Amino acid sequence: MRTIAKRIASRTLEAGAKLPSIRVSAEALGVSKSTVVDAYDRLAAEGLIEPRRGSGFYVTGPTAPFSLADAGPRLDRAIDPLWVSRQALEAGDGVLMPGCGWLPASWMPEAGLRRAMRALSRRDPVNLTDYGPPLGLAPLRQLLARRMAEHGIEAHPSQIMLTDSGSQAIDLVCRLLIEPGDVVLVDDPGYFNFHAMLRAHRAKVVGVPYTPTGPDIGLFEQALKTHRPRLYITNSGPHNPTGASLSAVTAHRLLKLAEAHDLTIVEDDIFADFEHEPAPRLAAFDGFERVVHIGSFSKTLSAAVRCGFVAARPDWIEGLVDLKVATAFSSSPVTAELVLALLTDGSYRKHVEALRDKLARARGQVAARLRDFGLTPWVEPRAGMLLWMSLAPGIDAADIARRALAEKLVLAPGNAFSPSQSASGYLRFNVAQCLEPAVFTVLAGIFDS
Amino acid sequence: MRTIAKRIASRTLEAGAKLPSIRVSAEALGVSKSTVVDAYDRLAAEGLIEPRRGSGFYVTGPTAPFSLADAGPRLDRAIDPLWVSRQALEAGDGVLMPGCGWLPASWMPEAGLRRAMRALSRRDPVNLTDYGPPLGLAPLRQLLARRMAEHGIEAHPSQIMLTDSGSQAIDLVCRLLIEPGDVVLVDDPGYFNFHAMLRAHRAKVVGVPYTPTGPDIGLFEQALKTHRPRLYITNSGPHNPTGASLSAVTAHRLLKLAEAHDLTIVEDDIFADFEHEPAPRLAAFDGFERVVHIGSFSKTLSAAVRCGFVAARPDWIEGLVDLKVATAFSSSPVTAELVLALLTDGSYRKHVEALRDKLARARGQVAARLRDFGLTPWVEPRAGMLLWMSLAPGIDAADIARRALAEKLVLAPGNAFSPSQSASGYLRFNVAQCLEPAVFTVLAGIFDS
Repeated sequence: MRTIAKRIASRTLEAGAKLPSIRVSAEALGVSKSTVVDAYDRLAAEGLIEPRRGSGFYVTGPTAPFSLADAGPRLDRAIDPLWVSRQALEAGDGVLMPGCGWLPASWMPEAGLRRAMRALSRRDPVNLTDYGPPLGLAPLRQLLARRMAEHGIEAHPSQIMLTDSGSQAIDLVCRLLIEPGDVVLVDDPGYFNFHAMLRAHRAKVVGVPYTPTGPDIGLFEQALKTHRPRLYITNSGPHNPTGASLSAVTAHRLLKLAEAHDLTIVEDDIFADFEHEPAPRLAAFDGFERVVHIGSFSKTLSAAVRCGFVAARPDWIEGLVDLKVATAFSSSPVTAELVLALLTDGSYRKHVEALRDKLARARGQVAARLRDFGLTPWVEPRAGMLLWMSLAPGIDAADIARRALAEKLVLAPGNAFSPSQSASGYLRFNVAQCLEPAVFTVLAGIFDS
Repeated sequence: MRTIAKRIASRTLEAGAKLPSIRVSAEALGVSKSTVVDAYDRLAAEGLIEPRRGSGFYVTGPTAPFSLADAGPRLDRAIDPLWVSRQALEAGDGVLMPGCGWLPASWMPEAGLRRAMRALSRRDPVNLTDYGPPLGLAPLRQLLARRMAEHGIEAHPSQIMLTDSGSQAIDLVCRLLIEPGDVVLVDDPGYFNFHAMLRAHRAKVVGVPYTPTGPDIGLFEQALKTHRPRLYITNSGPHNPTGASLSAVTAHRLLKLAEAHDLTIVEDDIFADFEHEPAPRLAAFDGFERVVHIGSFSKTLSAAVRCGFVAARPDWIEGLVDLKVATAFSSSPVTAELVLALLTDGSYRKHVEALRDKLARARGQVAARLRDFGLTPWVEPRAGMLLWMSLAPGIDAADIARRALAEKLVLAPGNAFSPSQSASGYLRFNVAQCLEPAVFTVLAGIFDS
């Protein structure tokens, strides 16, 4: 009975499939016919199979669809990789979100966006109605190439493909480079949505412990030898969730290991513009031999105007274009035009400089307030909005997060970021979302009780 | 040697993997050691494996990435499912595109879009900078529910999820419902991008011959029995590429077969607004038991403002939201606002009525001109921009398309639409793109020579 139930669950036996006859099953499994009759009856009672008159037993339908929630380990049932995203994206009015991964709307350049929309609405000629070219708006790709060059990354505009988000860019890279069952390395802790996305690709996610200067190189090498992964996905600038930055020596060692083990690295640089002094970029060292570089503007310009990009080897860009056309047909020329307008209107540099200063102040203030509750930062980030805070021994982050949610406060419990479920003693805080006094009122109620 | 080469190609043996020793291979394959030495040497000469001193043979890297171009049958090498898309999307100035699947920019409501952008830039409050809710902008979902109700489709707004395109919506449904290796039925001929997308999902594409009233029901039933497909993807309104419409009797029979064989149907209704009199909708008959309904505004409003949607069973919508968050994080609130503004500004109904009339006239004119070259319509479409034209015997559509491309004219050769490669005698024409006299000058040069 267990054998057949497992084959139905794994879809080796599909809905509508006829089960072997009682006699054939009994012989195949080496049991008596009455054992098989018994098993079939119990499976039918559970609704997994159904008898059809005079014709035998069939697997019932409809087949349950693929579920991300069920696809991975559920060591901590309620806190899966989608827990924080869903809570934060669905939050209604009056919900505070120290656990979310983006800036408050009041920090974003809304006035600039309004100006950009009006300017675009008056430009002539302009493409407001037609599909864009497969690579995306050429002037924006040229600008991105110049911006990358400032970080030492040499990419020709034809090596850059626009997408509707950084997430979509990584997703297309996964489609190009990994097959179901492939192993992909991620940081532990690391950005939870990488884990969710990789599950959607039926990849095996293996976490490598993260240190304050990047992944632990010794354990990284061990993982390469044990698991022969196809890809490693990481952040080079401010790391999500820890706020740490990759050091030059770790970057160099990583790339040497990648070459020795034929590993491709996806460098998600979504927090790049928060840095005062840029951390080393793997794509700069590597020259796109085995690094794919990803970016977007959701964190500094607008998350409502969806626009991201991927820079990679020319032959991979060709495959990525095919996959973008096949699965989305075109990225949005209009959102690309809005991003281009905002990046070139002269105010962007000032805007991000102001953000950096505000974030540096907020990191100091919020860390100090959280220390009062017994939380300590795992590292002092040099940039960005994130603090990875260690809880006092014996306190479980998932408990805290559930209690906070009941008080309309979305927190980000450590295990949402940990493939090994080893971060139950951590919470990720977004300092920009912690400046509302009510945040600390609620936290005081939880931590001081 | 063939055995090992095949295992490398299929990635059973991955880059970096060590091959079994000569002795072990010889025993496993039941051949002499010298045969294995010979095979390994030849594989090494071909670059598939490499010897490492004192340690044996290893599969060389880097592994070639997944390629859509290689994933399917290449019976007609140059004309694959991406042929038309890539040609049309990459066309430069001065290229005429009777083969493309969208209206000329001059037919689209550009002035309305400019107005909508200005109105949005002045609205307060408005979300121009933040991620949207996971389902997408609520007022647009409410409007879509009302519009569906006009076609007899009853969907609660919570059963509708917005995406950045109809293509993305179908892609997410494939992610939810199919596993690599699953069989998916499509129409033959049918929309080429369905085939490209399904290849990206590692699905097996099986075509069912299409008749002027929908798929051939007898052959459809046979395909269900032979292949046990998980999904069927089709258009209910004007069908791409034939322009035919589903009849009520075919719709009813399809749904009965779907129920008997536990098949899910994806109904892509992207051309819905071109219909004077709506064809039956599978989602209307079925009530979302086993039909998923897809739409977008790329064909009537703007393809540059990316916005699509999917309506489905509530439990499937829940899974689709998870997958959208995991792979794109959010659809664009700004493009959804622009679509909502255009749909509600009072001019949309007039705009699509004018389009229908212009298209009806163009269909008549273009069909008449094409008959002069010996082309005959396979069916007289009741709506839409597409004509599926049969060529005179002995003329090959791919030849014609290649000759046209040399003269800056993008045509859509039949086999781009045909999984069985049985449509070499057809071309798809977009009547709205054929009103430039130069189109017929070039065609005359090709067909009269």
